Amino acid sequence: MGRLVVGTGFVEDARTDDGGTGWWSQRLAWFARPGDVMVLPVEPDQDYLSYVGELTGVDPASWRVVVAPPGEGANNVLTSERLGSDALRDALLAVLRHHPVDEVFTPWPDRAVARLTDRLGLRSIHAGRGFLEQSGGHLMVSKATFRAVAAGNGVPIPPGAVIGTAADAVDITDRLLREHEVVMLKQEWGLGGRGNDILSTVDGVRPLGAPRVVRINGRADLERYFAEHWSWLSSEDRSTPVAEQYFPDSAAYFIEFAISDDGVRRVCDGEQLNAPLPAGFVLPAPAMPPSARAVLDETGLRLAEVARAMGYRGYFGPDGILTADQEPMYTEWNGRMGGVTHVMEGVGRRVVGPAYQRDRVILDLVWTSGWSASSFEDVRERVARAGLGYDRERREGVVLTTPFAELTGVMYCVVAADADRAWEINGRLAELFSPVALPA
Amino acid sequence: MGRLVVGTGFVEDARTDDGGTGWWSQRLAWFARPGDVMVLPVEPDQDYLSYVGELTGVDPASWRVVVAPPGEGANNVLTSERLGSDALRDALLAVLRHHPVDEVFTPWPDRAVARLTDRLGLRSIHAGRGFLEQSGGHLMVSKATFRAVAAGNGVPIPPGAVIGTAADAVDITDRLLREHEVVMLKQEWGLGGRGNDILSTVDGVRPLGAPRVVRINGRADLERYFAEHWSWLSSEDRSTPVAEQYFPDSAAYFIEFAISDDGVRRVCDGEQLNAPLPAGFVLPAPAMPPSARAVLDETGLRLAEVARAMGYRGYFGPDGILTADQEPMYTEWNGRMGGVTHVMEGVGRRVVGPAYQRDRVILDLVWTSGWSASSFEDVRERVARAGLGYDRERREGVVLTTPFAELTGVMYCVVAADADRAWEINGRLAELFSPVALPA
Repeated sequence: MGRLVVGTGFVEDARTDDGGTGWWSQRLAWFARPGDVMVLPVEPDQDYLSYVGELTGVDPASWRVVVAPPGEGANNVLTSERLGSDALRDALLAVLRHHPVDEVFTPWPDRAVARLTDRLGLRSIHAGRGFLEQSGGHLMVSKATFRAVAAGNGVPIPPGAVIGTAADAVDITDRLLREHEVVMLKQEWGLGGRGNDILSTVDGVRPLGAPRVVRINGRADLERYFAEHWSWLSSEDRSTPVAEQYFPDSAAYFIEFAISDDGVRRVCDGEQLNAPLPAGFVLPAPAMPPSARAVLDETGLRLAEVARAMGYRGYFGPDGILTADQEPMYTEWNGRMGGVTHVMEGVGRRVVGPAYQRDRVILDLVWTSGWSASSFEDVRERVARAGLGYDRERREGVVLTTPFAELTGVMYCVVAADADRAWEINGRLAELFSPVALPA
Repeated sequence: MGRLVVGTGFVEDARTDDGGTGWWSQRLAWFARPGDVMVLPVEPDQDYLSYVGELTGVDPASWRVVVAPPGEGANNVLTSERLGSDALRDALLAVLRHHPVDEVFTPWPDRAVARLTDRLGLRSIHAGRGFLEQSGGHLMVSKATFRAVAAGNGVPIPPGAVIGTAADAVDITDRLLREHEVVMLKQEWGLGGRGNDILSTVDGVRPLGAPRVVRINGRADLERYFAEHWSWLSSEDRSTPVAEQYFPDSAAYFIEFAISDDGVRRVCDGEQLNAPLPAGFVLPAPAMPPSARAVLDETGLRLAEVARAMGYRGYFGPDGILTADQEPMYTEWNGRMGGVTHVMEGVGRRVVGPAYQRDRVILDLVWTSGWSASSFEDVRERVARAGLGYDRERREGVVLTTPFAELTGVMYCVVAADADRAWEINGRLAELFSPVALPA
């Protein structure tokens, strides 16, 4: 029997817009199984669906795609208005009558999905529904809740604090700047680094995980900063941001778990490439000192176990860093599908095979600014003609992971036996799509 | 070795003011052990301390009381300003040099205590300090977090929702009123029922657990209600209130746990007497259908285990109800000492003895409005002369549980073999303190 797959979620990684194509939600195709009923915000790209189906070995004709009727707001995402409409409910009830499902799968902890499954009579097959219905999703993407639970469980985190009020902000940040020189401020619910700001009392700090570094000269300067930015940082005083020591030149580590009624499954880990915002991922994470790895593995799992105890079900990704001194710590948690979960679960586990974490490296990358192509098929064909498409025998090559959009091309990943080989293949893509010849 | 006992916390029960005497914090005397160093907001009442020490068998001369130096704000409670002052730190360091402690005990999850123990070099003996330092205390008194975790763990709760925004409030409440007629709205961090309001589309609802019932006639009426009260309900939009079905004529059940690094200990359960705000407690909870009791016991413990997994350490009291139909459900959690914890742990466990839950009933009550007395000693002597003071042999009688205040007398409890006998003794107190003769 299939599942009900609801394509909620936000654009959250390197691509700053979804070009109106709802490409984000179509990444769910990497998870789709025979018989799945998929709710999407837009008509999917059929070339893309066929391509994914070929690689995962699932006939897309077995999927039932229901595009949510348009609402008055944004129609390239599944807004709560669209998810709550009678029209969507009726359309789904009609499909479900002939295509029963035995599980609900949704990548984003959206309360509107809990309402939808209630109205569809699917409460009993929606794992974690109660937590979702009572807005538990907020806790799983809250950097404030993360810091409390991490500190309460001996999980290493950067020195810092949760900022309860505007009045606290200057004091807390001032103290951190005096002690550590560089401080990152984070919106409670910011995504992909764009809700972060770095403050520094010294020059020459390179921003990773935030768009910029703000130079602070003394407390008066800091007071001016918060007078101007507190409203942005706190979402108009409606959330509790955090402040923490910033470690320049850290590597950005992450780990992904799948939390179900049955337990916690470790999916994969990886490194996030920041330049300065997320630009790609390397799976699995490159080698690091075994003691650091042991801390990240053990405490990451501990966080996942707490999330499970609280009632959350779904993908769960704590983000961490390995400082320049090789010190491991976690910096936030994300109770939702991450920017690369579909690559781990679709490309890695299903296409390359479960051993991918042991004998392959996967680079997940964004379309380079300036590259040009005309369509998904165009990209696919040019990659194939160059002999760079994914090869099942050699378990190597390029996999396109999203539909095509005019402005942003496709996202893709490169599978190879090691990172050098993967970057070499990636270099050859530049030759295919750059409008001008590259220097050798 | 003694403990560092920090008298934080708010007035939260039937007495609506602390008369400037800081009586709330002095209830900590019921927990004090030989050698404890106590931080209090006010000079304690020595008659009261001696009385408590006599009953618990601890010589108050073994306690070191440090009254926090005054700050610019309220000086009958331990504000963060007072807890953070250099003067308090220095005073405590001087005392601790000669009276070392091996544990930190604090009844309220106040971040300022985490800062204090840091500045005293006591990080390692302060259980749950990390969680507290990162503002985890907010989660443990949040009705929104409670609903998510409870729903995520199969703990029965009233139908309802977390209200994220003013825009949601009317829709959510309107739907609940249509389905259930009577709805309770709760501030996220309200205490003792004063942060609650009851809305009803029908007449004749008696308010329990809230000061009043607001009659609502249609959606326009509801919109007017929120236009006027959203700001109060949401603490100026800075918190997420909850709305839930209100069950008239429920019994108010509670259970208390002590959460430590070692595990969860069940302290006691009880019933809260509301009239309409908390007026007293009965320990242990009166008999109820075994199936309801089993649900409350089992799911209450489950909540405590989650709180422990999140990193909280300290007293933890989920509040529940038993509806008129004998249906059990939980309505909030409180990660702090409750209004009656000192009675359970001090009067019950230490004075009456650990068997008190099996062979005794304890009524915890407030001074009746209109009663008159002149001092703690006056109350104590009049009770003793009437032969009503606590008798160790009979394990029966009246225990005074707080210092005396002009306006509000003392709080007290009555220990007896059963509830009838306890109420009978209480009736005789009225004769002692009522200025006019009562009808027989």
